[in-house]
Amino acid sequence: MSQQPENSAPDLSLVDAYWRAANYLSAGQIYLLDNPLLAEPLTPGHIKPRLLGHWGTTPGLNFVYAHLNRVINDRSQDVLFVTGPGHGGPALLANTWLEGSYTDTHPNVQRDGEGMRKLFRQFSFPGGVPSHVAPEVPGSIHEGGELGYSLAHAFGAAFDNPDLVVACVVGDGEAETGPLAASWHGNKFLDPVGDGAVLPILHLNGYKIANPSLLARIPHDELDSLLRGYGYAPFYVEGDDPAVLHPRMAQVLDEVMDEIRRIQLTARAGGDVERPRWPMIVLRTPKGWTGPSEVDGVPVEGTWRSHQVPLAGVRDNPDHLRQLEAWLKSYRPEELFDADGSPKPELLALAPRGELRMGSTPHANGGLLLRELRMPGTTPYSVEVTKHGTTTSEPTRALGRMLRDIMTLNADEKNFRVFGPDETASNRLDAVFEVTAKQWLAEKLPTDEHLETNGRVVEVLSEHLCQGFLEGYLLSGRHGLFNCYEAFTHIVDSMFNQHAKWLKTHREIDWRRPVASLNYLLSSHVWRQDHNGFSHQDPGFIDHVMNKKAEVVRVYLPADTNTLLSVADHCLRSRDYVNVIVSGKNYTPDWLSPEEAALHCARGAGIWEWAGTDDGLTEPDVVLACAGDAPTLEVMAAVALLREHLPELKVRVVNVVDLMRLQPETEHPHGMPDREFDALFTPDKPVLYAYHGYPWLIHRLTYRRTNHHNTHVRGYKEEGTTTTPFDMLVLNDMDRYRLVIDVIDRVPGLGAKAAGLRQRMQDQRTRHHAYIREHGEDLPEIRDWTWPY
Amino acid sequence: MSQQPENSAPDLSLVDAYWRAANYLSAGQIYLLDNPLLAEPLTPGHIKPRLLGHWGTTPGLNFVYAHLNRVINDRSQDVLFVTGPGHGGPALLANTWLEGSYTDTHPNVQRDGEGMRKLFRQFSFPGGVPSHVAPEVPGSIHEGGELGYSLAHAFGAAFDNPDLVVACVVGDGEAETGPLAASWHGNKFLDPVGDGAVLPILHLNGYKIANPSLLARIPHDELDSLLRGYGYAPFYVEGDDPAVLHPRMAQVLDEVMDEIRRIQLTARAGGDVERPRWPMIVLRTPKGWTGPSEVDGVPVEGTWRSHQVPLAGVRDNPDHLRQLEAWLKSYRPEELFDADGSPKPELLALAPRGELRMGSTPHANGGLLLRELRMPGTTPYSVEVTKHGTTTSEPTRALGRMLRDIMTLNADEKNFRVFGPDETASNRLDAVFEVTAKQWLAEKLPTDEHLETNGRVVEVLSEHLCQGFLEGYLLSGRHGLFNCYEAFTHIVDSMFNQHAKWLKTHREIDWRRPVASLNYLLSSHVWRQDHNGFSHQDPGFIDHVMNKKAEVVRVYLPADTNTLLSVADHCLRSRDYVNVIVSGKNYTPDWLSPEEAALHCARGAGIWEWAGTDDGLTEPDVVLACAGDAPTLEVMAAVALLREHLPELKVRVVNVVDLMRLQPETEHPHGMPDREFDALFTPDKPVLYAYHGYPWLIHRLTYRRTNHHNTHVRGYKEEGTTTTPFDMLVLNDMDRYRLVIDVIDRVPGLGAKAAGLRQRMQDQRTRHHAYIREHGEDLPEIRDWTWPY
Repeated sequence: MSQQPENSAPDLSLVDAYWRAANYLSAGQIYLLDNPLLAEPLTPGHIKPRLLGHWGTTPGLNFVYAHLNRVINDRSQDVLFVTGPGHGGPALLANTWLEGSYTDTHPNVQRDGEGMRKLFRQFSFPGGVPSHVAPEVPGSIHEGGELGYSLAHAFGAAFDNPDLVVACVVGDGEAETGPLAASWHGNKFLDPVGDGAVLPILHLNGYKIANPSLLARIPHDELDSLLRGYGYAPFYVEGDDPAVLHPRMAQVLDEVMDEIRRIQLTARAGGDVERPRWPMIVLRTPKGWTGPSEVDGVPVEGTWRSHQVPLAGVRDNPDHLRQLEAWLKSYRPEELFDADGSPKPELLALAPRGELRMGSTPHANGGLLLRELRMPGTTPYSVEVTKHGTTTSEPTRALGRMLRDIMTLNADEKNFRVFGPDETASNRLDAVFEVTAKQWLAEKLPTDEHLETNGRVVEVLSEHLCQGFLEGYLLSGRHGLFNCYEAFTHIVDSMFNQHAKWLKTHREIDWRRPVASLNYLLSSHVWRQDHNGFSHQDPGFIDHVMNKKAEVVRVYLPADTNTLLSVADHCLRSRDYVNVIVSGKNYTPDWLSPEEAALHCARGAGIWEWAGTDDGLTEPDVVLACAGDAPTLEVMAAVALLREHLPELKVRVVNVVDLMRLQPETEHPHGMPDREFDALFTPDKPVLYAYHGYPWLIHRLTYRRTNHHNTHVRGYKEEGTTTTPFDMLVLNDMDRYRLVIDVIDRVPGLGAKAAGLRQRMQDQRTRHHAYIREHGEDLPEIRDWTWPY
Repeated sequence: MSQQPENSAPDLSLVDAYWRAANYLSAGQIYLLDNPLLAEPLTPGHIKPRLLGHWGTTPGLNFVYAHLNRVINDRSQDVLFVTGPGHGGPALLANTWLEGSYTDTHPNVQRDGEGMRKLFRQFSFPGGVPSHVAPEVPGSIHEGGELGYSLAHAFGAAFDNPDLVVACVVGDGEAETGPLAASWHGNKFLDPVGDGAVLPILHLNGYKIANPSLLARIPHDELDSLLRGYGYAPFYVEGDDPAVLHPRMAQVLDEVMDEIRRIQLTARAGGDVERPRWPMIVLRTPKGWTGPSEVDGVPVEGTWRSHQVPLAGVRDNPDHLRQLEAWLKSYRPEELFDADGSPKPELLALAPRGELRMGSTPHANGGLLLRELRMPGTTPYSVEVTKHGTTTSEPTRALGRMLRDIMTLNADEKNFRVFGPDETASNRLDAVFEVTAKQWLAEKLPTDEHLETNGRVVEVLSEHLCQGFLEGYLLSGRHGLFNCYEAFTHIVDSMFNQHAKWLKTHREIDWRRPVASLNYLLSSHVWRQDHNGFSHQDPGFIDHVMNKKAEVVRVYLPADTNTLLSVADHCLRSRDYVNVIVSGKNYTPDWLSPEEAALHCARGAGIWEWAGTDDGLTEPDVVLACAGDAPTLEVMAAVALLREHLPELKVRVVNVVDLMRLQPETEHPHGMPDREFDALFTPDKPVLYAYHGYPWLIHRLTYRRTNHHNTHVRGYKEEGTTTTPFDMLVLNDMDRYRLVIDVIDRVPGLGAKAAGLRQRMQDQRTRHHAYIREHGEDLPEIRDWTWPY
């Protein structure tokens, strides 16, 4: 519980000193190799050879941070700071150093003169620290290099953290992006009872790299209208005179923190919860505030020219050097730091203590708070399989039941959520609505179903928001799943990139604790978007994911219900990965019993002896490999045809669940050793793959394997439209008839009988073509097919 | 010039009849195989076996279309209709059939009873037409299957079309997406003098697939505030009674068209142009309006249950069948169609004539309006190269000059624009600002530079908007370039997918005329984002692009200024492609003269005889291949080391500009025949690639080549941070020293001298490591390196 502030006037001269200290430390990082306290006159030798960093946003960030420190102290309020303008790395490094959290995580950088020298030198320096708010910076869950996701991350961190205030600085450049423009509506999903608060601080510093920003260039009443239309109560802090802005910011911060508290107390007192009009702050200050106002006769402070390094010629231009020295001295470092470089005790007193320091909050190092998910196991949801492939079930529907019980088992912990763009029911996960609802704070009508202020499913028609919410939720120490139409997962390609990059770095940092993996369920996939057509048919997210570091990414293609359950169970227990699970929602043959599925998933890829006709002792004539539910069904149907019509042919069926198994062990931790690979796929027999996605991915994964030259892959080759499910396979040459033809064409010496079969297969394709155009649905023998053995 | 409307009261009973006809035709498409006019009682045999389609949004689209027809007739106003809810394919098919534009483009579907039967049957039927507003639908530039881009497309189409009104229906589901939320700000870029108008029609039908929509569930004053905050003057048409809504819609449409005209006349009368407050319409009607109000005892009309097919059991459930028949008859088809199925003459009279029909506007078949770009050639911007690799220049700066002159040469046509997310200057294309400016209708300050209401460069910090604007601009018959940081092009991965899919289909449709290619310039690429760090380092957009149809995509990696100019000249003249050009902005050695560059680019890949040491007659000992500017520089530096230290080694240098050349000719139109490929790369000598992006892409492209087993690729392997440019190469094992080591390791029998060189290369890497950590910049011999031969 946070304390109410006392009503004494805050000592803002101290806040100003703190701000000046942070500004000094920020500028120092951008420029100084040495002489951090300006103990001697500045010379070119003290200046870094490459001046890298973003000054423009930095003083504003420092201003917010210093003022937040004051209210944190006053109220013992947990605050997580999300830095939308993550380019302003110097600000966060300066502040975490000042408050001591930086030294806690980086003991080689002490809070003294030598530490300050290291702090300055390491910034944007080879072997040092990145220029952005990267995972190396304590207190951060958000890099901010790619703009647009700060506010979504903030909402994600606030879910189920009722005592937390997430202060999120939104840059006015970032505010032009689509994801950010949509994120304001996060307030329609935030429960004032069970969730924490998000305090957006829109920082209008007026410029991007080379242009003014839009929101800084619309009239005040239009901006105010926009923010009220988004559902906020904006408070304005505008100007360039610190003497005016300090008391204004202090007053506004007290008001908004009071208002947040009032909203929460009201909502938590019971009764109907209504969506509150949460407060927010608009901070309008000059870009590069307190930096050089003019350089070489052109204005810099308050213009786009201060975006990066305001004085660029410091090493060669004595005027610039003098200007830099004057700028640094304008902060009066002698008032801020002791002779040994330690911040003065009265500054240290302004920094919060312990975990209240924003650089030390465990919410930004979520692994510290992570609790194991209580998992129900797969048994209650499994389908019984007494005979392979003779019953059918809906894989995601079974998964929905498992997710439902995970919700229940972890209801007290409130640490598991499902996110999706309006597709949770469409993806047949709707069993979750037996125990929870969709979180919804907007208006409700009597006809609505499953909408509650405290639901644990978040549905919003923005893949960006789903992904951003989930990332914030995971990095602050919780668990979750993002379910999405496969094709539209590409909408978050770039967000995935950034999260995977974050995880790669995070794994290398000893003080960052493991977090729950980001789990994707891609359903309504390419082969079953026959009703929505070409725009909905795209399996390329898998390819995209494969470009990221092997230690971070995993891709699973379960073939049926029991394998999906096993895979999901595994993924939801894992840490520090991105897991991509691709699974259909439609009725699918149950190929494996629960026990077989568990073993098969543990192996990741294996021979289905019961399906093929090789004796397991000698080599088969051909290997039919499959990965994905639709391809597995087609391979099985092709095998059935071969068993019937060419019984003497020895066919081996290999099913791949874990795509990473196909890679060499040198390339991926799951990679299969060559000997094992050759044992599965043979060193020299034809290998025909039916693969869920773009066929070349299989080649990319296997090109170093012994038998690669004899490997042929069928997959999606970007042919699609609104048609029948089987026609999708025919259009892409992955149907059972085509696979049989492929076998006949690749296995030498099959003779006349095979030639006859080949012709019949061609005829079947022709018949299919005519039939669907006449009847509008697939041939009865396709619709009613079951595994006959 | 459009006419002012007469002030007579419009005959809205006719508009209602037209609307009923479109609704009848829409429902008919979803359900009926036969019996289109209900000439006999409906039986299960008349019903399609698979009921596919989206009814929910359709009646609203039909309502808007019918009313637009009226004002088009009244004013002879050119209107382009953009269907945000593109799932509502039946609506656009119905309306274009009614107005005759469908039959014009699809003569097999006549405007009579038999044509109606075909229209119904073909919808979502195998061999028929897709369920969405696909390229097959005349009058469309927007598919709408993936939501979020309608309004950006609308603004793109309105640029430089001063007499056009783009009516854009925005669905309330789509309105939740990030790209759409950002697109409202398009009004800050629309010049009321030189551009046309965009009329957004926000259609609040209340629901998505399974959830209410956000904007339909906020209070009226909040919605109004939001839309005014976005800068619009909203007009509301709300209700469910057609008798009330018809006159209201007619009145509002007259008002907004008058207001658009007033705004344009005022602005065009001269004087300072201010950003107008453009009108927009909010249309709030029930989802599935006029469809079944209840089915099986639960409400359907006005709920999410009418999203797709309101009556799902028509074939098996006699009640549903009766309900369908009653529903269809509720439109009173006998009043709408003659006995032969032709629409009644009084309905036909409501449809506009000729190109004023929204299905016939040439703006939606941009190739009809496309003018060749006047191109200045490359000569004026080329750099002279008297000796290979001894001078340096900034490739994109030269390109900027070329773009500047393209602006000038085509100034009268007003058909060329450059789009970018605030990076045009940063990417060093700023020569364009010598002749034009950045379009900007928001507020201006005296310190601003290059901001004008009529600039031809559009900069907004949203890759989504840049891409969406450009797509709309291209598909309506103009030319353009999107320049972007390479890593952040992933933000539009999914938009690229949809555009590439559109182009693939568009190319197969005979009445669609070729449009200008979508040209990407990816600059500030992975190897020179050393200052921004890991979040800005990602070359995967190339991989993403490669998954799309070969006939649509092209990827170019020019190595220097003259090759970039040649490539850009080629791309800007091309049609119906997506061209991806990756080029750095930093000073780069000028490897090729203009003539050599032109020849090299025409070939796409070739031997640089002057660089290597093989005699061109016999086979070399090793092939060093390079693709991309940074890799080319490293290969050249490695070759220089080899020439100096192992002069007897025969090294061949192959440079690849057109990445598609590496594929077999069976895979891509640019693919190289095997014989030619073997002649370049040898059938059996070690081939070492230094490649711009992720190394496995080269394997994917070449795995079927003779010499693939002896091919080794260095590229970006996801190692990066804020460091020096050369350290980026070292981190990813693509530096010159590593390449020399690779040669020594791969070429057999090089002996002791090579072993010594190998050790020196290792030492150099160690020295580099120590030097940058000491000095913060690259070794002098790296910084000052020039090609010594």
